[in-house]
Amino acid sequence: MNLLYAFDLLGTAAFAASGAWAGIRRQMDLLGVLVLGVVTAIGGGTLRDILLGDTPPFCLQNDTYLYLSIVVAVVVFIFHRHFEHIAHPLLYLDAIGLGTFVVIGTQKAIYFGSSFIVAVTMGVMTATAGGVIRDMLSNRVPLILRREIYASPCIAGSALLYAGHMLGLNYAISAIAAVALVVVVRILAIRHNWALPRAKKN
Amino acid sequence: MNLLYAFDLLGTAAFAASGAWAGIRRQMDLLGVLVLGVVTAIGGGTLRDILLGDTPPFCLQNDTYLYLSIVVAVVVFIFHRHFEHIAHPLLYLDAIGLGTFVVIGTQKAIYFGSSFIVAVTMGVMTATAGGVIRDMLSNRVPLILRREIYASPCIAGSALLYAGHMLGLNYAISAIAAVALVVVVRILAIRHNWALPRAKKN
Amino acid sequence: MNLLYAFDLLGTAAFAASGAWAGIRRQMDLLGVLVLGVVTAIGGGTLRDILLGDTPPFCLQNDTYLYLSIVVAVVVFIFHRHFEHIAHPLLYLDAIGLGTFVVIGTQKAIYFGSSFIVAVTMGVMTATAGGVIRDMLSNRVPLILRREIYASPCIAGSALLYAGHMLGLNYAISAIAAVALVVVVRILAIRHNWALPRAKKN
Repeated sequence: MNLLYAFDLLGTAAFAASGAWAGIRRQMDLLGVLVLGVVTAIGGGTLRDILLGDTPPFCLQNDTYLYLSIVVAVVVFIFHRHFEHIAHPLLYLDAIGLGTFVVIGTQKAIYFGSSFIVAVTMGVMTATAGGVIRDMLSNRVPLILRREIYASPCIAGSALLYAGHMLGLNYAISAIAAVALVVVVRILAIRHNWALPRAKKN
Repeated sequence: MNLLYAFDLLGTAAFAASGAWAGIRRQMDLLGVLVLGVVTAIGGGTLRDILLGDTPPFCLQNDTYLYLSIVVAVVVFIFHRHFEHIAHPLLYLDAIGLGTFVVIGTQKAIYFGSSFIVAVTMGVMTATAGGVIRDMLSNRVPLILRREIYASPCIAGSALLYAGHMLGLNYAISAIAAVALVVVVRILAIRHNWALPRAKKN
Repeated sequence: MNLLYAFDLLGTAAFAASGAWAGIRRQMDLLGVLVLGVVTAIGGGTLRDILLGDTPPFCLQNDTYLYLSIVVAVVVFIFHRHFEHIAHPLLYLDAIGLGTFVVIGTQKAIYFGSSFIVAVTMGVMTATAGGVIRDMLSNRVPLILRREIYASPCIAGSALLYAGHMLGLNYAISAIAAVALVVVVRILAIRHNWALPRAKKN
């Protein structure tokens, strides 16, 4: 599916930009900005491939992902003073990347014969683990563990794709629907400041 | 060995509870509590399987571990105000989990033809790496690196099992003896506040 | 190449010493010092082997690396009050280790059919990822991401080796030249306090 591949590259670029931007905010040097951009963009899919036993992972088989995230990170590094101008549109690209990564991860797990819980875990991990590694490298508690911003739309999209697979629906239609579901829920979550419950200590 | 599998599930539940509790103490949201519970319970065995090249790891082949740790983490999240009541019995379940994970990890490494040092490393890692990842995700220096609480009993149990293997002893007997050794040393260490030496800067 | 293997062991020992020293500075106990020493020495090569799909990784196939780094870490733990005396010569051993790890990582990636960008990434990762994991375990932002000290010489050495491979030069000569390049650039970088540009927030 060429549309999914285009979305995949778009998401890779958006994730690389947000990772590079995190490096700049932490006052890292050029190498730190590069590493954070690359890790955010490809970390989730790489961890998925290691866990599924499909090594070398996708990013070592197709150079496009490494080159694309390096170039994006360098561009962000050079033009970081103007980054605020693209922060808002970036949220939309980021949501598309999130949905696409969920679909690719879930689909790959299904292809490897995974059960429901494993397929959803792999889908969510593909979309979110890069950001978790970025935050660990930045010496922060990963954002996703503290404030719900990503996981619910990812779980919904992944479950939808798995249901479509079980029902024998056309893959292209299921995939588009799952990406759209993630994007819509994600953007609504930003707009309305949705959050998961948090334990309160008494 | 059905007894070992029962102990394994018991240990998984105890580790998931302690991981979830760490998430609650860090004021994480529901997803953070889930992730910390799951990672603490299955992280060590997953890392072991990746290193031994046995992918997909155990937790992606048998759904029980994922479902069990998710359910336990959710229960801890809901009833966390009452957690103190189970903190003391949990220490004993935790010790059983520690011993069982050491035995399973060491045994698997032996099965894969590992030498003594590798088998002990894999045994200790199976039992402790989940907690290390939990602490890294919580942005803390892993507890095990600062204050001896886990490693010595694990090393002792793993070495005992390896010795039993080299001497050709019955596996079931060696395994039970190794689990018991870990549990006893661990509980004595808690009671008597044992600790490894620490370097003092002059 | 026996010379390269000798350099490899020298570098392993130097990396283990610097890792153990980091554990002592963080007031870790004996186990923490051991783990930091071992992880710093073998972490990069282990991650490389996992990514290339060559598991079990080198350190589980040849016990020498594990035993050597454990012994070095214990020695540093015992004699840490005298560590300052070896800190200066250690920098030179460390540079040799850096060059050797770059060459071994790049060469292995080439052997596995990697492209230029993947080979350089694997070379740099072999030499630097151990230190990154050490810093993550110490709850610090990895040094390499904040202040350029390692990456540029590694990239230069790795690119040189790859070029030698493409030009069909004798491997031994390319490897020696690449190690020498890393060592020289690294020592010059220390002497002259070279650094990569850093983004400045306005």
